[in-house]
Amino acid sequence: MYRKPFTAKEYATRLADVKTRMAAAGFELIICQDPANMCWLTGFDGWSFYTPQCVVVHLDEDWPVWFGRAQDAKSAHITTDLPADNIVGFSEPLVHHPVNHPYDELCDLMRARGWDKAQIGVELDAHYYTARAHHHLVKGLPNACLSDSQELVNWARIVKSEAEVALMREAGRICTETMNRAISRIAPGVAQYEVIAEVYHAQIMGLDGKCGDYTSLCPLIQVGEGTSTPHLTWTDEPLPDEGLVMMEIGAARRHYHAPLTRTVHLGKPPTEIIKLANVIVDGVDVALDKAKPGVSCQDVEAVWQRVLNKNGYTKPSRVGYSIGLNYPPDWGERTASLRPGDETVLQPGMCFHFQSGVWLEDFGAAISEPFVVTEKGGERLCDVRRELIVID
Amino acid sequence: MYRKPFTAKEYATRLADVKTRMAAAGFELIICQDPANMCWLTGFDGWSFYTPQCVVVHLDEDWPVWFGRAQDAKSAHITTDLPADNIVGFSEPLVHHPVNHPYDELCDLMRARGWDKAQIGVELDAHYYTARAHHHLVKGLPNACLSDSQELVNWARIVKSEAEVALMREAGRICTETMNRAISRIAPGVAQYEVIAEVYHAQIMGLDGKCGDYTSLCPLIQVGEGTSTPHLTWTDEPLPDEGLVMMEIGAARRHYHAPLTRTVHLGKPPTEIIKLANVIVDGVDVALDKAKPGVSCQDVEAVWQRVLNKNGYTKPSRVGYSIGLNYPPDWGERTASLRPGDETVLQPGMCFHFQSGVWLEDFGAAISEPFVVTEKGGERLCDVRRELIVID
Repeated sequence: MYRKPFTAKEYATRLADVKTRMAAAGFELIICQDPANMCWLTGFDGWSFYTPQCVVVHLDEDWPVWFGRAQDAKSAHITTDLPADNIVGFSEPLVHHPVNHPYDELCDLMRARGWDKAQIGVELDAHYYTARAHHHLVKGLPNACLSDSQELVNWARIVKSEAEVALMREAGRICTETMNRAISRIAPGVAQYEVIAEVYHAQIMGLDGKCGDYTSLCPLIQVGEGTSTPHLTWTDEPLPDEGLVMMEIGAARRHYHAPLTRTVHLGKPPTEIIKLANVIVDGVDVALDKAKPGVSCQDVEAVWQRVLNKNGYTKPSRVGYSIGLNYPPDWGERTASLRPGDETVLQPGMCFHFQSGVWLEDFGAAISEPFVVTEKGGERLCDVRRELIVID
Repeated sequence: MYRKPFTAKEYATRLADVKTRMAAAGFELIICQDPANMCWLTGFDGWSFYTPQCVVVHLDEDWPVWFGRAQDAKSAHITTDLPADNIVGFSEPLVHHPVNHPYDELCDLMRARGWDKAQIGVELDAHYYTARAHHHLVKGLPNACLSDSQELVNWARIVKSEAEVALMREAGRICTETMNRAISRIAPGVAQYEVIAEVYHAQIMGLDGKCGDYTSLCPLIQVGEGTSTPHLTWTDEPLPDEGLVMMEIGAARRHYHAPLTRTVHLGKPPTEIIKLANVIVDGVDVALDKAKPGVSCQDVEAVWQRVLNKNGYTKPSRVGYSIGLNYPPDWGERTASLRPGDETVLQPGMCFHFQSGVWLEDFGAAISEPFVVTEKGGERLCDVRRELIVID
């Protein structure tokens, strides 16, 4: 028995919102290949995003159309409420075919429905929407007008409903438990992978009978010199007797993500790292206090950067990004970023990962927080101690 | 201390092979965004493939050029032998910028090196090479000739070296351990996620101090009705007292993958499922026996399909695909498939996942094997009991 995470009414509300945005942008039809957009619009869930698949939304249609590999169509029947006629599988020989492409049959479908002359929005920068997929659509629909939908559905996702925020809070609690278990495993001589095995176990076990999903990024751990770059993964090596360990770990509930970073020091920490960690926590406090409805993303970044600068630091990369429902390879929503120039105005229900990591030339530290925007400011979704964690 | 998985000589051999293929195909330069191709060519490793990044190979250059996000350049310094001048970071404001794109700076780099009039191969169908990334290259390099490299590096990867086969065998042993631990957890009333938490723990713990990496697909589990479709993931639900449970699980060592499927029946199995499972095992035996150097992919499929047909079954989807080094979202190499029409001739060192799953209308069964091609036929990389596993 498959339990859908949201009511039929919630999906209908989302679809109506997307259609309003489509009409405003001049699209009669959009093709969504981003798996998070596919799931958000229809509930479709499954690890099949490595083959071409999409959800098509037409202004005049009551339901979206799911298009994907024939063997995955059954997943669409199980995980969505779409009528059977709106679940269309493509022919198996098209998988990794050197000449033909599954979207050749999507073009056939568009013609059969009379949609081949439409103003069509495509997700030009979605991770799995390859240049080749686009070529086949452009060639197969010569009378249509295809253009970039510019993350139209991603932007519709940015303000979370109450039901979505509830899942974000559940993800936050799982992430808290996961990070605490990871920290409890860290000690000199323990292999990096032993910490990560603990992380994965905790991520999936979840809490109170509510399990976790796979996360859009794998758990990240950096040790010693590796702390100067954020995306390395674990090795066979034992943790050293002394030095820094940084972890970025997420947890996901029904694919809604809460990511978190913490920094651990084995042995007595140098003064400079303690100082950096304290400045980071101060900066987060100021930023979360600022993150109220009506304030812009760049204003939140500015108060954080000011705390850094006052203490002699700077963070050149953005300090946060919108989070929510997502699939690998990224838990960011590719919409609002907390950085200079981003004038997106905060609204209640928006969620961000305040990625307050500072990577200097030889070391780094990160003590981040995922948060939801509320009238009182940014409410933290996790609750792990906020300091340089010293294991001595 | 970061340990590279291969010698400098092995990377040099790979690069020379790729250059030979480039010359034959008429490319002066190729741009590789597939993370597996980036890693195979240079050793570059890190979960940063969610932002535009690539490795550029020019016929006249001794070393490839790594291009990616500035904060990930340090990962390139740590995980590769590339000279510092060949590690180029792009400016941070280009991340998720609505107008500009990181590849605008890649075009600048190409101009600075005098490569902007070259015959350039791009990976038009690589998962992370988006239509938008391609647009920016085409627009930014008006004097170059860009065309699809048609998986040129993927094809170079298809025959594994001895060192690579050694990693495949290690992955196979980890996968065996992982699947056995998963099976040992399966029982009525156990939540699906408890099985998966065990899987993740085993995948990462590895064996004998050699850990596992994240796998390119998450562990897949299907229960009851869900067994009619292959890519669903776990839920909170307890396993039933009776019925089918199917699992597809991989293990990865230094990103080299061994995937495996097994089918479990809770309670006394119906005759029809026992029969299907027996036919599958017979079909695999015949196919592995056939999989010797000189035989074509389609011939291997044919002997398998013949066993199915003789027993009243058919498998419309391909029965296998090349495996090796990979990153999410797929452990297939997007080259050879075991299916009608694929005339790729087997060579020693090629590795495949013989994905012998048969999905009927109401249920399915899968008992697959990853194998390496040897003079004696397909040598199995895993060693898990080959039958319908009954837990009664």
